[in-house]
Amino acid sequence: MGIEIERKFLVAGDGWRAAASGLPVPIRQGYLSAPGATGATVRIRRAGADAFLTVKGPGGLVRAEFEYAIPPEEAEAMLALCTTPPLAKARWSVPYQGHVWTIDVFESPASLAGLVLAEVEMEAADADPPLPPWLGREVTGDPAYANAALISQGRPG
Amino acid sequence: MGIEIERKFLVAGDGWRAAASGLPVPIRQGYLSAPGATGATVRIRRAGADAFLTVKGPGGLVRAEFEYAIPPEEAEAMLALCTTPPLAKARWSVPYQGHVWTIDVFESPASLAGLVLAEVEMEAADADPPLPPWLGREVTGDPAYANAALISQGRPG
Repeated sequence: MGIEIERKFLVAGDGWRAAASGLPVPIRQGYLSAPGATGATVRIRRAGADAFLTVKGPGGLVRAEFEYAIPPEEAEAMLALCTTPPLAKARWSVPYQGHVWTIDVFESPASLAGLVLAEVEMEAADADPPLPPWLGREVTGDPAYANAALISQGRPG
Repeated sequence: MGIEIERKFLVAGDGWRAAASGLPVPIRQGYLSAPGATGATVRIRRAGADAFLTVKGPGGLVRAEFEYAIPPEEAEAMLALCTTPPLAKARWSVPYQGHVWTIDVFESPASLAGLVLAEVEMEAADADPPLPPWLGREVTGDPAYANAALISQGRPG
């Protein structure tokens, strides 16, 4: 059982690339629940060679999160059950002053290509991680920037 | 990864009770996905001391099914995320001529109390299990008798 405490930002420019560690992890994910139907989302994710089934509760900064590692072939079969094709993104890790930021560079569907989002997980809702200079506007709690919304509604105008 | 091949029937009378083996398993279950949204359902189930997260594909007689045992306390937390309160039923096992039938006696919500359904899992879609005399009308593939529909739409008229 877990709680996810996370801030999310747009990214301004490519300044983060010089500080990225290692290679990006290719991610493909889809959703089995309609966003908004229950407030909860059910996500199927491939991340490199791994796969996960994840249930998230409603919320923005703080959300309930339950994640289970599953066999990749079962994840692929469940991705085929999603009505919307899975989104694909490259996930980079960028350490900055004691925190590791996650930079997602969206690749598909075409409507999301070029979108870049930065996230940082925190130990507590009142943690105050130093903000890197390449961050843009904060979108924590903005439902339009939830991945489940992006995949079905496209990039916010 | 699995395929569930199952026939489902209404039950006529109490003839099955004399043949039931052991005590019933108390089941509580709820759904995280809206029925019909993607054709897939995501079910959280408590069954006695156990708990499961189950994804089922669309279909009637034959459905894709992916089931994962999860910690009971996580199941309880996810049941609280379901917008519809969980349904409760007592599940009896009734052996009949080489097959074990599952008899679900619904207890709540009140709109389902008294409903009794019988199911038999089969190895193949063309298996032809002997039908016990206490079966009523077959409802295999009738979407109104899917548990996800029963919980949200009530007992079919």
